[in-house]
Amino acid sequence: MGEKMTTVAILGATGYTAVELIKILLRHPQASITVLTSREETRPVSAVHPSLIGKLDLPLENLTPQEIARRAECVFCCLPHTASAKVVPGLLQNGARVIDLGADYRLDSAETFEKWYGEKHPDPAKLGKVPYGLPELFREQIVCADLVANPGCYPTSAILPLVPLLRGDWIEPTDMIIDSKSGISGAGRTPKLTTLYPECNENITAYGIGTHRHLPEIEQILSTSSKQPVQIIFTPHLTPMDRGILTVTYSKPAKPASQTELLAVLREFYRDEPFVHVVDHLPATKDVSGTNAVHLTVRVIGGRVLTISVLDNLVKGASGAAVQNFNLMFGYPEMTALT
Amino acid sequence: MGEKMTTVAILGATGYTAVELIKILLRHPQASITVLTSREETRPVSAVHPSLIGKLDLPLENLTPQEIARRAECVFCCLPHTASAKVVPGLLQNGARVIDLGADYRLDSAETFEKWYGEKHPDPAKLGKVPYGLPELFREQIVCADLVANPGCYPTSAILPLVPLLRGDWIEPTDMIIDSKSGISGAGRTPKLTTLYPECNENITAYGIGTHRHLPEIEQILSTSSKQPVQIIFTPHLTPMDRGILTVTYSKPAKPASQTELLAVLREFYRDEPFVHVVDHLPATKDVSGTNAVHLTVRVIGGRVLTISVLDNLVKGASGAAVQNFNLMFGYPEMTALT
Amino acid sequence: MGEKMTTVAILGATGYTAVELIKILLRHPQASITVLTSREETRPVSAVHPSLIGKLDLPLENLTPQEIARRAECVFCCLPHTASAKVVPGLLQNGARVIDLGADYRLDSAETFEKWYGEKHPDPAKLGKVPYGLPELFREQIVCADLVANPGCYPTSAILPLVPLLRGDWIEPTDMIIDSKSGISGAGRTPKLTTLYPECNENITAYGIGTHRHLPEIEQILSTSSKQPVQIIFTPHLTPMDRGILTVTYSKPAKPASQTELLAVLREFYRDEPFVHVVDHLPATKDVSGTNAVHLTVRVIGGRVLTISVLDNLVKGASGAAVQNFNLMFGYPEMTALT
Amino acid sequence: MGEKMTTVAILGATGYTAVELIKILLRHPQASITVLTSREETRPVSAVHPSLIGKLDLPLENLTPQEIARRAECVFCCLPHTASAKVVPGLLQNGARVIDLGADYRLDSAETFEKWYGEKHPDPAKLGKVPYGLPELFREQIVCADLVANPGCYPTSAILPLVPLLRGDWIEPTDMIIDSKSGISGAGRTPKLTTLYPECNENITAYGIGTHRHLPEIEQILSTSSKQPVQIIFTPHLTPMDRGILTVTYSKPAKPASQTELLAVLREFYRDEPFVHVVDHLPATKDVSGTNAVHLTVRVIGGRVLTISVLDNLVKGASGAAVQNFNLMFGYPEMTALT
Repeated sequence: MGEKMTTVAILGATGYTAVELIKILLRHPQASITVLTSREETRPVSAVHPSLIGKLDLPLENLTPQEIARRAECVFCCLPHTASAKVVPGLLQNGARVIDLGADYRLDSAETFEKWYGEKHPDPAKLGKVPYGLPELFREQIVCADLVANPGCYPTSAILPLVPLLRGDWIEPTDMIIDSKSGISGAGRTPKLTTLYPECNENITAYGIGTHRHLPEIEQILSTSSKQPVQIIFTPHLTPMDRGILTVTYSKPAKPASQTELLAVLREFYRDEPFVHVVDHLPATKDVSGTNAVHLTVRVIGGRVLTISVLDNLVKGASGAAVQNFNLMFGYPEMTALT
Repeated sequence: MGEKMTTVAILGATGYTAVELIKILLRHPQASITVLTSREETRPVSAVHPSLIGKLDLPLENLTPQEIARRAECVFCCLPHTASAKVVPGLLQNGARVIDLGADYRLDSAETFEKWYGEKHPDPAKLGKVPYGLPELFREQIVCADLVANPGCYPTSAILPLVPLLRGDWIEPTDMIIDSKSGISGAGRTPKLTTLYPECNENITAYGIGTHRHLPEIEQILSTSSKQPVQIIFTPHLTPMDRGILTVTYSKPAKPASQTELLAVLREFYRDEPFVHVVDHLPATKDVSGTNAVHLTVRVIGGRVLTISVLDNLVKGASGAAVQNFNLMFGYPEMTALT
Repeated sequence: MGEKMTTVAILGATGYTAVELIKILLRHPQASITVLTSREETRPVSAVHPSLIGKLDLPLENLTPQEIARRAECVFCCLPHTASAKVVPGLLQNGARVIDLGADYRLDSAETFEKWYGEKHPDPAKLGKVPYGLPELFREQIVCADLVANPGCYPTSAILPLVPLLRGDWIEPTDMIIDSKSGISGAGRTPKLTTLYPECNENITAYGIGTHRHLPEIEQILSTSSKQPVQIIFTPHLTPMDRGILTVTYSKPAKPASQTELLAVLREFYRDEPFVHVVDHLPATKDVSGTNAVHLTVRVIGGRVLTISVLDNLVKGASGAAVQNFNLMFGYPEMTALT
Repeated sequence: MGEKMTTVAILGATGYTAVELIKILLRHPQASITVLTSREETRPVSAVHPSLIGKLDLPLENLTPQEIARRAECVFCCLPHTASAKVVPGLLQNGARVIDLGADYRLDSAETFEKWYGEKHPDPAKLGKVPYGLPELFREQIVCADLVANPGCYPTSAILPLVPLLRGDWIEPTDMIIDSKSGISGAGRTPKLTTLYPECNENITAYGIGTHRHLPEIEQILSTSSKQPVQIIFTPHLTPMDRGILTVTYSKPAKPASQTELLAVLREFYRDEPFVHVVDHLPATKDVSGTNAVHLTVRVIGGRVLTISVLDNLVKGASGAAVQNFNLMFGYPEMTALT
């Protein structure tokens, strides 16, 4: 540990998640990026992402799982849904360990996957056996896993404040409302009318009410980790900023509790967690921009328990969490390369 | 009607609400701006607001209510709280009719005012007798009033979608959640750290949970107009854009109802309203930017009734509504100068 | 005049320029929009542009020039380059008058067009005979034209401050530098990586140095209207905002002149122009946002004459100028529907 | 070297420059922040900057130079002009080494300082003897200095591309135009109308033409390092983004040169510099956001030599450069803590 280097590959290296991941890994003293893949690009990665000029000159390649696994001990998949599940088996068979930043291994059931993603799951046998890459809840399983399902950005922002309250039976598992606001980078780097600058700028809109694919993911993890079926309403919004998620949750108290008590519950739960900070004030997304931190707080008001949490969707909501998982899987201090 | 001109004064003409009001009134063929006041500025208004260059050259003056009323038939007050209530009596006594864009005459009780605004009300006798300037609900009272209390920006966005559902007993009046997102202009033009560009840009934050002064205003109007005590949780947010409010409300259904039925209820209620448009899709603030329109819709999901509504906080949320009231009070077609 | 209505068509009604044009024309008491075309969309225009809900319900149609000319006296073309020149002959032959917001009829020579636009001009015979739709310089020709070439957004911002100084021989026609900054809407509504929100937000970049197609247009009009060959360097920039252009020009004085003298020259030149305002201070794009105004000033410093001008690229830089031309061509007061 | 720790103090720790500096120093394995000062704040720094929660808990203190120097070997001054020069003598006398991020020690002459800053210089004897903290030009002097004058943000962006061209006599030292665009953070964290969100957002404006205090700084360093008097026109702009500067310079060639030759001149000059990258494409501010990098290029066009350069005004334009100087002064590898 400490001195050993780990070779890493990043599949789908042209997107926002991938470039954030590369920047974090370049600060990691024991990670060595050896492979970057793209199905379309063959230029050096710094031609696609000029922010990497002088930092990384690897070409983008289109490689087989075998070749990737030959050149990298750890593979980060930044691929569209179903694309990961098509290459992961080959990667694992050839000895690589995999962190999937996509959605393919998050849900427990192939039926649920098919219902929400509209396609048959390419690798259904693994579902239900892959640890969900939220170290604050599943650290032990992550440490020894060969495949980790990195969480969605919205789910992390909702799960972290709610699990301690659900586990302690402080809030009811039903009639739970989650109102989230996200920056635009979460929508990806493929040109679409909905994410064009003049469509998003000076604009806020709710979208995907009742249909967003993070809904079943949130319900599943809240249910699993509180050992009771949880039902939510989830309203995501697109907000005119690059990055950041702010999530407000509204739950019914299951027993009388003051704000002070619930703050103490959260503080105790996250006492030893390096990235989760329970605060008294109302946090802002900018407080955690560019970092792997989550700031969260709680309010008791009008007969409801509110939680307010913020994170950077590209870091703790994606690539930072992935590196946190990488550190756990490969025996490095959990905060390495992360702030 | 039609040909007659009405002279108007704008008190507190240096702020964002005032400049928006001036621009709307300059498009009004029967309004003639004759007075602009400021306690501090004496320059021509176009020196303070260069966007008025070539459009309006009036000086900013510091005048008595008598003098203002002598020169203007209608007075728009864009003043901080308690400042309006100190001059309104003098304006009315001298024959002017007044539209107060501030909060002084919105609440029914001096006690409530004092509790939420932290100061004694300077003109308590009028409270409870001033029509709330939301024509969609109080048109008849506005037409013949000498003083109108123009609504707050958040309240309009929440009241319009909720009143038809409350009146028809479609939703419960309790456990009602209102989650609103606003642009920064709503916070005014006085320099403050919290509204400095680098503090707001690339940032979203909730604020004033349980303490925002629009909370009692929303509760009062919802209660009055549905004839039952309404209780809300209100979470406003600051969003990095100049203007626009998007409000999502979460209510419990009081009886079974489908989304289609509730859309029909809202459509019927606003059938003849020129500025309220019930839409099927999820509306965005940019759809109504710079206009007096409200776009709203409803969703039935997860055992809750959601409404989603958007308006421009400086237009329908302030100055456009004020001109709509002006049109009603002075007998002009309600849409004059408004789009 | 005054009472008569003019029927208008807008070709290519899905873009930003078109929706801005529609909004201006809806305020025009004598314009009646009768035709909207699109090659791809067939939905009502308010489904494509929700900001038109309650304002305009016309369908988008794919029509022949004959049919368009049958239904509209004036046709506004908001089409990509060469597309206008393919339909304009048919429109004119069928009796319509045309305002082309694209580039097809701005340049005097088919060779220059082909060099800069990379395609043969489809209607070369008209080149050199179509008035350039900048009323401040070419009002007389516009009034009686059947076809007007509406200027590019950058050219208007550069030509208006420079022409008076060139005509009066105050500045040299060579070694002239034009450094312009534009909002993103100028790049159009077709999804492209370069105009994706996360690419443009928090970013400024120069582009098209020496290759931007507005360069020959600026040189041609400056040359024509100063009667001497003018040579420029043109550096456009993309700035993270929806709309607005700020242009700084740097010229060599041709004879000694003070700032005061040059301000007076500009003021005299634009004395009777309703939309051009010569100011003492440094203007900002927000001062003219949403209006047809141009604010401009001049500085004499370091052996150079600087002009600084601002306009809204979608209004005076496109659709507002088009309506100004429409007003001239059809005998309406020039400011109708414009602010 | 390597293992030894250096204690550091940051004076004026409430501003944007200071918080950026703290974040960089927290990544520095050999820097230990021991002192943070403020004249007004006494709260812990993480209460003022919530982005430091969990990272740094030092209180803000109001201390004498003696006490500061007792507790810190290196002092970073993030103070308003003249404030640094009042404490620097005491800091040096008590054995600290100082990096001044303000303007007090950048100019060579007390007269020039007084002319541009409107106040007498409090410590004029040192002027002309303090190295200008641009390692790319003055590395040797910085290494052994006890006091370094960290450059202004605009000057770095203009000096780096121009010095190699001036030194090689490729461009004339006169009639040089520098047109710069900056994000808003450069204007500081003190609330002012001009940097309020609704004033800056959706707006671009030129300011300080001929009067900006970075003008004499740029002229002095260009003159010094090219050994000839240089005269510039400098036009800064405020652009709606948090951070980033893009500078375009327009110079007259002093001898014939192609773009390829000048690119080669720049590449050769910066061949061994870790932070300066000469690129072929037109760089964007986002390419270097959050990093200490400068990307720059050159164009030969229309009889002029243009350079285009980008940097992050808070990093290479302020705090990153300060840490680069710190590394040189205290014998650490120059890139430590910087990317």
